[in-house]
Amino acid sequence: MSPSHPSVARSALDFETLNAQYRRVRSATLAIASPLSAEDCQVQSMADASPIKWHLAHTTWFFETFLLDAFDAGYRALNTSYKVLFNSYYNGVGNKHPRSERGMISRPSLSDVLAYCSHVDAAIESFLLNADPKDREQIAALMVLGFNHEQQHQELMFTDLKHLLSINPLAPVYAANAPQPRAISASAIQWEAFEGGIVEVGHQPSTDFAFDNESPRHRVLLQPYQIADRLVTNGDYLSFMQDGAYSDHSLWLSDGWDWVQQSSIDSPMYWRQDEAHQGWQTFTLSGLKPIDLEAPVCHVSYFEADAFARWAGVRLPTEFEWEHAANARRGLKQLNDTAWQWTASAYLPYPGFAPARGAVGEYNGKFMNQQYVLRGGSCATPVEHTRLSYRNFFQPDKRWQFTGLRLAR
Amino acid sequence: MSPSHPSVARSALDFETLNAQYRRVRSATLAIASPLSAEDCQVQSMADASPIKWHLAHTTWFFETFLLDAFDAGYRALNTSYKVLFNSYYNGVGNKHPRSERGMISRPSLSDVLAYCSHVDAAIESFLLNADPKDREQIAALMVLGFNHEQQHQELMFTDLKHLLSINPLAPVYAANAPQPRAISASAIQWEAFEGGIVEVGHQPSTDFAFDNESPRHRVLLQPYQIADRLVTNGDYLSFMQDGAYSDHSLWLSDGWDWVQQSSIDSPMYWRQDEAHQGWQTFTLSGLKPIDLEAPVCHVSYFEADAFARWAGVRLPTEFEWEHAANARRGLKQLNDTAWQWTASAYLPYPGFAPARGAVGEYNGKFMNQQYVLRGGSCATPVEHTRLSYRNFFQPDKRWQFTGLRLAR
Amino acid sequence: MSPSHPSVARSALDFETLNAQYRRVRSATLAIASPLSAEDCQVQSMADASPIKWHLAHTTWFFETFLLDAFDAGYRALNTSYKVLFNSYYNGVGNKHPRSERGMISRPSLSDVLAYCSHVDAAIESFLLNADPKDREQIAALMVLGFNHEQQHQELMFTDLKHLLSINPLAPVYAANAPQPRAISASAIQWEAFEGGIVEVGHQPSTDFAFDNESPRHRVLLQPYQIADRLVTNGDYLSFMQDGAYSDHSLWLSDGWDWVQQSSIDSPMYWRQDEAHQGWQTFTLSGLKPIDLEAPVCHVSYFEADAFARWAGVRLPTEFEWEHAANARRGLKQLNDTAWQWTASAYLPYPGFAPARGAVGEYNGKFMNQQYVLRGGSCATPVEHTRLSYRNFFQPDKRWQFTGLRLAR
Amino acid sequence: MSPSHPSVARSALDFETLNAQYRRVRSATLAIASPLSAEDCQVQSMADASPIKWHLAHTTWFFETFLLDAFDAGYRALNTSYKVLFNSYYNGVGNKHPRSERGMISRPSLSDVLAYCSHVDAAIESFLLNADPKDREQIAALMVLGFNHEQQHQELMFTDLKHLLSINPLAPVYAANAPQPRAISASAIQWEAFEGGIVEVGHQPSTDFAFDNESPRHRVLLQPYQIADRLVTNGDYLSFMQDGAYSDHSLWLSDGWDWVQQSSIDSPMYWRQDEAHQGWQTFTLSGLKPIDLEAPVCHVSYFEADAFARWAGVRLPTEFEWEHAANARRGLKQLNDTAWQWTASAYLPYPGFAPARGAVGEYNGKFMNQQYVLRGGSCATPVEHTRLSYRNFFQPDKRWQFTGLRLAR
Repeated sequence: MSPSHPSVARSALDFETLNAQYRRVRSATLAIASPLSAEDCQVQSMADASPIKWHLAHTTWFFETFLLDAFDAGYRALNTSYKVLFNSYYNGVGNKHPRSERGMISRPSLSDVLAYCSHVDAAIESFLLNADPKDREQIAALMVLGFNHEQQHQELMFTDLKHLLSINPLAPVYAANAPQPRAISASAIQWEAFEGGIVEVGHQPSTDFAFDNESPRHRVLLQPYQIADRLVTNGDYLSFMQDGAYSDHSLWLSDGWDWVQQSSIDSPMYWRQDEAHQGWQTFTLSGLKPIDLEAPVCHVSYFEADAFARWAGVRLPTEFEWEHAANARRGLKQLNDTAWQWTASAYLPYPGFAPARGAVGEYNGKFMNQQYVLRGGSCATPVEHTRLSYRNFFQPDKRWQFTGLRLAR
Repeated sequence: MSPSHPSVARSALDFETLNAQYRRVRSATLAIASPLSAEDCQVQSMADASPIKWHLAHTTWFFETFLLDAFDAGYRALNTSYKVLFNSYYNGVGNKHPRSERGMISRPSLSDVLAYCSHVDAAIESFLLNADPKDREQIAALMVLGFNHEQQHQELMFTDLKHLLSINPLAPVYAANAPQPRAISASAIQWEAFEGGIVEVGHQPSTDFAFDNESPRHRVLLQPYQIADRLVTNGDYLSFMQDGAYSDHSLWLSDGWDWVQQSSIDSPMYWRQDEAHQGWQTFTLSGLKPIDLEAPVCHVSYFEADAFARWAGVRLPTEFEWEHAANARRGLKQLNDTAWQWTASAYLPYPGFAPARGAVGEYNGKFMNQQYVLRGGSCATPVEHTRLSYRNFFQPDKRWQFTGLRLAR
Repeated sequence: MSPSHPSVARSALDFETLNAQYRRVRSATLAIASPLSAEDCQVQSMADASPIKWHLAHTTWFFETFLLDAFDAGYRALNTSYKVLFNSYYNGVGNKHPRSERGMISRPSLSDVLAYCSHVDAAIESFLLNADPKDREQIAALMVLGFNHEQQHQELMFTDLKHLLSINPLAPVYAANAPQPRAISASAIQWEAFEGGIVEVGHQPSTDFAFDNESPRHRVLLQPYQIADRLVTNGDYLSFMQDGAYSDHSLWLSDGWDWVQQSSIDSPMYWRQDEAHQGWQTFTLSGLKPIDLEAPVCHVSYFEADAFARWAGVRLPTEFEWEHAANARRGLKQLNDTAWQWTASAYLPYPGFAPARGAVGEYNGKFMNQQYVLRGGSCATPVEHTRLSYRNFFQPDKRWQFTGLRLAR
Repeated sequence: MSPSHPSVARSALDFETLNAQYRRVRSATLAIASPLSAEDCQVQSMADASPIKWHLAHTTWFFETFLLDAFDAGYRALNTSYKVLFNSYYNGVGNKHPRSERGMISRPSLSDVLAYCSHVDAAIESFLLNADPKDREQIAALMVLGFNHEQQHQELMFTDLKHLLSINPLAPVYAANAPQPRAISASAIQWEAFEGGIVEVGHQPSTDFAFDNESPRHRVLLQPYQIADRLVTNGDYLSFMQDGAYSDHSLWLSDGWDWVQQSSIDSPMYWRQDEAHQGWQTFTLSGLKPIDLEAPVCHVSYFEADAFARWAGVRLPTEFEWEHAANARRGLKQLNDTAWQWTASAYLPYPGFAPARGAVGEYNGKFMNQQYVLRGGSCATPVEHTRLSYRNFFQPDKRWQFTGLRLAR
């Protein structure tokens, strides 16, 4: 999801557990950045992406702003100008630096930002040791929200970095074992059939965390449907390409056809024709690799997913079909560890949806326009971050995330 | 709806009735153009609009292409180059002239186009006299589709013309009694309450015409809801404006807020502050008029409708709530003769939706992306054109149609 | 020249002669428009061009503003709003309508504008009958300026109209004998040699009219040079094309190479490859015609003229070489009746240049930036409008005027 | 000058002297970068600028390509992909990386690039020790060209860096004693008068280096003129601003007025109104400083320089007036160590100008379009780099260089 999505969090966690979780989440973030140079962390390679340095600073800013500034009277900021520089889109907490110019700010340097991380980490640890027990529930909710916010940015760090390295003519390698959707033995699709009827969807009220856009849990009416047991593979997708799909207007939404023509799209993002090897390669975080026909197709837009389904004579599932089928736990593979799965559902509020109050929660609903819901999770999503009720969302032309598709009919 | 949407039509009409209807529909189109000069009919005042001359020619082209060329072996075109010039977006029937350059084509002239209308009108009348009875059902379906297609363009002629005249510094008058939403006595909103539950929506299969996007009729589950008996008025909207709504980011969708700021929006389209008269005026097809506080607000975008509802502490209805409440026939005013009503529903296919085959029907589904559904009808909609199952649709920033809003909660 | 350039005029003409000239110039303008429909006169086909209707009204506005409003106390305007609508770029005389939206104004209609012409024509004739003899010199100067201003617009009417008709897929014909550069027997170029030295250039002070940018007359130092006796032909230019010039960066100025690539330029404007006839055609005001290899190449930009000269191993003349050689009257053909001739000279003020005072003359200098001087005149230039000291000017990528080239070395 | 301008060089230098000069020039380049972080060296803050890292690599690439690759059979490149990455605009030597994406390339890192510098430096030193004496003259010419090329980039490093730091909200300081135009005691302007006549301009053929655009030396005819002894100061310019110059269209070239309005220009680049201190500040490489009224105004565009001169009732000098007056050595201050001085001359070839052959020299002429000549030199120009015949050039809206003005009349 383009920006992050603070929301109501429920938690019964004690301060010690929070502290342990905090250290674990923060270490994971730093681990992603650790193989990178100061230059790698500086560049914003397109408007949709942010510099790694910015991700590091912004996730830190989140804890500083919503925990330390809010609850810790003794906290002293390392640098007050960071308040504006590292605010993403929270108008309610003051000014922000223009999103498209995040890569222009060479100072603070990466090492300054790492010092900022350490400063806030130390302050948080000390704060949790001394926090007032009467604030426990509110603090725990915000801390858990911060963990989830940071996990979203961990995924964005991988995808933004992938884009950055992809435009470098040297085709650099981030790491040999970096996230990349893996093949399973891709036999023919098995269709799992469901009766439909009135079913419940959305987050089950509990002490577990969920974003506010997953609530309220409510009933929907499903028609009978079938859903594929696996994702569409590169091999499947190559057939679609070889059938001339990118030059057949009848397969595309009107806006999708405009996008294909204006952007000269003829394959998934990061695919490159390699004349020497007489085939397709794809750029990965581990460098250029030949296409694995059994691996799921990835980095496709909603327009491509929708056109593929139309070409195949079927359709994409709705988000509620997806959730219902996933909950049924019958044979569905690659649910949340491979690629996000475009659904046919527009990203809209659930009946009775009410955003949380104040800056921390005011802003989930405001992105509910002209985006589509994706379900599941990807190879770049922290595993504890996914849920079957989770709603990711992007505009239909976006494809720098690890986005694939699962068919329905 | 930006372009028009041919679809499957069912009809049991005989050729004589078709002929009479044809004459009636075509006369209505010409009547709209009759007060206009050749220059008025030439200009395309923005990319969303088309020249009146083009509307005249394109509706004629429709009957020529889908009736005469398809069924009348003896038909001779007046000018074969019109095939390309007046195709709107039907890729399946050949090339088309770029939409944004429709106003650049000074030839054929208006009188050439009127001759083209007469040529096709004469050919259709003669064709219907001599058509093969075995084709009757198919011909009737296409004729009825042509009538509905033309009625959509009649509405567009009014709205495109309104935009054209509005940008002329002379503020010209089209006609004293031109379409404009009228006031009803606007007392406080009455809320009509509905229980919800499983209800049927969509076009009831019958011999009556409907567009394919209204089918299949299907069941949906509604939560209990209330809906306003009348549209939001200019007076209501002025309160919203005076409360600073256009400068309060918290009321707007994120994309809406960008739109407000980038386009310097501070009032509905066509509103102008008149310092001399110390108040707001609005440009109408009858010239500049003072705002009528009891008339429904009109020419607002989805972003504005959504922000108004949020400001009022309520929301927009879904398209299914709207349809269900309208069918209940309890107290709802201004349903289809005043202003189109933005709903909270994304424009998406109904379950099982399948577009008609061939060029005439292939293209409804392709616009189902990033648009919102409007329900009802406006003062510019031919009265026999509206239906309670009718789905109009536009992008959320569009407002040159007669678009207003009705609240729900 | 993109807009026209009023300037100081000197005149000893009496009122009767002025009246006769006025009628002659005005008739010529109307004659250009007379074969055109209201629609033809309405459209602005690109930002550089203006609608014919606008040209008619603006030239009329000139006499109304600078003569009638200034000197005739009894004059009553037909419509005061025309003051703003038909001002081109004279900030000193009030507001103006945005240039790029001239084609959006459907009212006043063509017939309204023709009535405006008649109204002003009658008023001018009556005014000249009764004008105060003490104002004679000032009035005569302004009238002569108006004639020259109007002659510039006569040329623009042809070139703007040519562009308009060229984008119509019907390739309409304006007139069988419309302006088009004609062939002379194009034998090999003869080089006329000149010694150079100190020579005088610029307008010779006299009672004849000249624009202010042709003054002051001054001395320049020329190196010895040779200049071609004729213009470069289509045949010459075809050799350049066939030699791969449009894909050889080494022939082009850097900005020219960008222009070629970004605009996909591969031939002069209006040239079209006709596969059926296996050759090049060109769109003319008399319709599509095969290329005449002996006719001068026309509708080339400065970038193309400069690249051609480089390819030919020579160069373009400076504006002073051109003027000096033309004055020498030795063998130079096609001086001012065929195509404007790009020179290597930037359009800059002559030493001591001072613009005339007030709105009428304030604005010649302001266009002296990033344009090149063209000398001579074209098939569309009124013959009495040209002079050997005349300085036309355009940006280096412009080519909708009748622009060709003559070589020097 | 936007890019650098290799040209014919003449030299009688021996290899040892060349080696010493090489070390001196290269050290100066590294010294500019030495206070900067890897992030500072990575960012391209606008399309006109390049990253410092790119400047370091490109100047190195120059010696590698034109010396080592051309003359040293034993040379082994450190990384052959640098050939494409660090080519600026020499189409003749192969592909190049898009200019606007220079800041997107995070690898090679700054330390990789510094290693590249060392690699080439070592190779050059060894090459000069062993070079074939018969190539001495050609090698010396190319080496001297490389020195001059590199000095141009040294100046660009300062100006590009200044822009980068200026857009950082933290207003960082590069160095306390960084280049900035200094005040002299600015008493009233003294006008130095010259008779004009036929004078010689351009580079005097000699063994000294000059760029090819300074040749051939030739005669021009000057009218009598006067030129100011000093540059226009901030104090002078403030009077112009306070007189409302930025809102008076009559002072501006037409394109300049469009630029002022579209870019909301109201002061020289880097000026900022400081409400707290009630006055103007300017961003410098040493941080934000109050305006020094006696220092020369700097970072003005040609449009601003021209408007200022018009406001003052005088004009800018031509490049030949400037050169002639400078050579006369009578009272002119701030010639080449303060700010480049806009002239009224378009950047065009001298009579008989012929670019050098091959990639190294092919490209000076191609920038001779729509630019103005600046003369002198600035506080950021290496002192041995300037000459009285030196022709710098920029488009009229550019002002990120240290550009000021000197008046003439």
